[in-house]
Amino acid sequence: MAAKGSCAIRHYFDWAASAPFEDSIINQTNNSSLFGNPSSQHGEGKAAKLALEQARSRCAAVLNVPPETVFFTSGGTESNGIALFSNLVKKGQGRIISSSAEHSSVREGIETLEKMGKPTGRIAVDSEGRVTPDILAKTLAKYEGARFASCMSVNNETGTVTDIASLKDVIRKHSGAPVHLHCDLVQAVGKIPVDISGWEIDSASISAHKIGGPRGIGILYLRRPLSSEVFYSGGGQENGVRGGTENTQGALCLASCLERYAQAETVKTEYSRAKARWDKLITALEALERCTIIPRRRAAEEAGGFSPYILQAAFKDIPGEVMARALDDMGFAVSTGSACSSSSPERPVLLAMGVEEKLRIEGIRISQGYSTTDEEIDLLIEAIAEVLKFL
Amino acid sequence: MAAKGSCAIRHYFDWAASAPFEDSIINQTNNSSLFGNPSSQHGEGKAAKLALEQARSRCAAVLNVPPETVFFTSGGTESNGIALFSNLVKKGQGRIISSSAEHSSVREGIETLEKMGKPTGRIAVDSEGRVTPDILAKTLAKYEGARFASCMSVNNETGTVTDIASLKDVIRKHSGAPVHLHCDLVQAVGKIPVDISGWEIDSASISAHKIGGPRGIGILYLRRPLSSEVFYSGGGQENGVRGGTENTQGALCLASCLERYAQAETVKTEYSRAKARWDKLITALEALERCTIIPRRRAAEEAGGFSPYILQAAFKDIPGEVMARALDDMGFAVSTGSACSSSSPERPVLLAMGVEEKLRIEGIRISQGYSTTDEEIDLLIEAIAEVLKFL
Repeated sequence: MAAKGSCAIRHYFDWAASAPFEDSIINQTNNSSLFGNPSSQHGEGKAAKLALEQARSRCAAVLNVPPETVFFTSGGTESNGIALFSNLVKKGQGRIISSSAEHSSVREGIETLEKMGKPTGRIAVDSEGRVTPDILAKTLAKYEGARFASCMSVNNETGTVTDIASLKDVIRKHSGAPVHLHCDLVQAVGKIPVDISGWEIDSASISAHKIGGPRGIGILYLRRPLSSEVFYSGGGQENGVRGGTENTQGALCLASCLERYAQAETVKTEYSRAKARWDKLITALEALERCTIIPRRRAAEEAGGFSPYILQAAFKDIPGEVMARALDDMGFAVSTGSACSSSSPERPVLLAMGVEEKLRIEGIRISQGYSTTDEEIDLLIEAIAEVLKFL
Repeated sequence: MAAKGSCAIRHYFDWAASAPFEDSIINQTNNSSLFGNPSSQHGEGKAAKLALEQARSRCAAVLNVPPETVFFTSGGTESNGIALFSNLVKKGQGRIISSSAEHSSVREGIETLEKMGKPTGRIAVDSEGRVTPDILAKTLAKYEGARFASCMSVNNETGTVTDIASLKDVIRKHSGAPVHLHCDLVQAVGKIPVDISGWEIDSASISAHKIGGPRGIGILYLRRPLSSEVFYSGGGQENGVRGGTENTQGALCLASCLERYAQAETVKTEYSRAKARWDKLITALEALERCTIIPRRRAAEEAGGFSPYILQAAFKDIPGEVMARALDDMGFAVSTGSACSSSSPERPVLLAMGVEEKLRIEGIRISQGYSTTDEEIDLLIEAIAEVLKFL
């Protein structure tokens, strides 16, 4: 996407942090005819409630799940939090395990559970940042009492895709107590083919602002009701799962985001286009002597192993921060990692993958979206080559 | 406010549940030039961060507090939750006490703390729904280990105003360990004179959608940093207090809400106007033989004892639900209680005040706002009289 900014023309390559707003979607945020509180029983409340439930049904239809499994939250972080903290009120003990490459909202949630005295554990990832069926099986065998496992679908720093269906197979075959499978779908929905029902995920998180929608609205998918196990239900809205006056306008926007970008056909078409652009970028970067794609085997990976929307790359002797600043000055927005942990110099996801320190420091994240053009890929490649001449 | 709806003309008297959107405020929700993630380091991120910090400073200026004490959240419920659950990570034990007339988001938060094994306790309210200095002093004496007290400013069901400054005096004179004073200001800010700094509140919650703003944005005020005591910091945004990508557009809207409605002069002017309308309504209702104002002594109360934006009244032999429905059919939106606990037939606030069961069942809440007109008050009085003829 070319956009005006501090530079005459800006090229935005940080869609994984937040996508540009789709005007036709975001315009629903100021629908003032639906100002009623959906929990109120009068005409204004009922109109808002009807709109909210229509939004829920529309989201459910795109996601191919029953409407009653869709709960609106304030976003991906809160969705992950509600799922994780249900473990604080679940009866009986059990270990909560999570992949070592999870988003900071899951990572810090697990740390909170640890502080609260809950037994936790990490599921290692391979050198590509992936939890494999074999790793999960071994982890479940190691932690016999596991009852909750969090594994993200698309990694937000490397684009690594984890095969959630295969992990569910492992859980299904596991001889111990049932294990709840939570899946962070924030970078997956609207980007890669997702099959929540088919994969038999127990809970999942989705965010609107990664796919053209506004801030402050997301979904927590819950295969089975969780209401008696919700840590904090506030005013009891969203069937006791998420308290606070319902964000009708946000829910309508999110429904439109999903209809626009997350229908199977659209995902397929956009995926091909994104992949063509990404293949071009990766080929060009690999031709640069000083560039290392992270993980190194990414290009050789079979189809579907990485999201064609996210790329991690390092440039020899240029700290990621410096490269990102140089590109920013030239009009290109890229990042050094997750915006959600930008204040921390650590790169825990890369560390979990076993990436060496030098590469961790040099790594930058490039991420694209639907409106990214071939021409912008060319310009980005030129700009990187230009930076390499001087730094 | 007269608004078009299912009836030809609608009269909205449920501002306490949610205020009609102010178009000029809400229009900022779709400001797509600020789509960057404020945590990103590039141009788009910095522009969003700058806007976010400007919004914070504008909010702080109106509230007369330092900008670094203002934390954006998804709303009042979440703000209350973050304050309450800091008790789960605070070092050392101590009792968490709260007024018996708190909003459901505080009440259920306290129940969560109880479930987590934290010692809790209730602060009784008098027959007007108020925590008095005397009651608080006795409660602190009873629960020697109290360290956190939650007392709302304006009750959302009755409009009862609690004198927070006088409660702080009691806490200051209390001989035990320091007690953190949390104050739910959701129905107070923009409605009655509020002096967060002067009252020396330790934490407070504010919501945008009660004062013309959008859903999904609120403030948690924290007098002192809480970051090491935050239960769940997610991605560490808002200085570790509230995780999740920052809602720049929402923050800008909230700043505009506060500037429009919460400046001391505006609050004073609007308060007089609201009070004149409310006096008229209360006088008319008291003249009706079947009407009981709740609490009964409300009209006799000295100035400032009740918010002139909220009124609770019961009509003999007409369940509140029936009265609300009858009025709704005639074009008037009123409620039976808090929208946040509309699914529960209980009226815990009225119960805490000692209101007898019959009146609790018959109670309705009437609430007004800035654009409510004298004419609408007349029409409401006529409509109620009309209902009383037939029911």
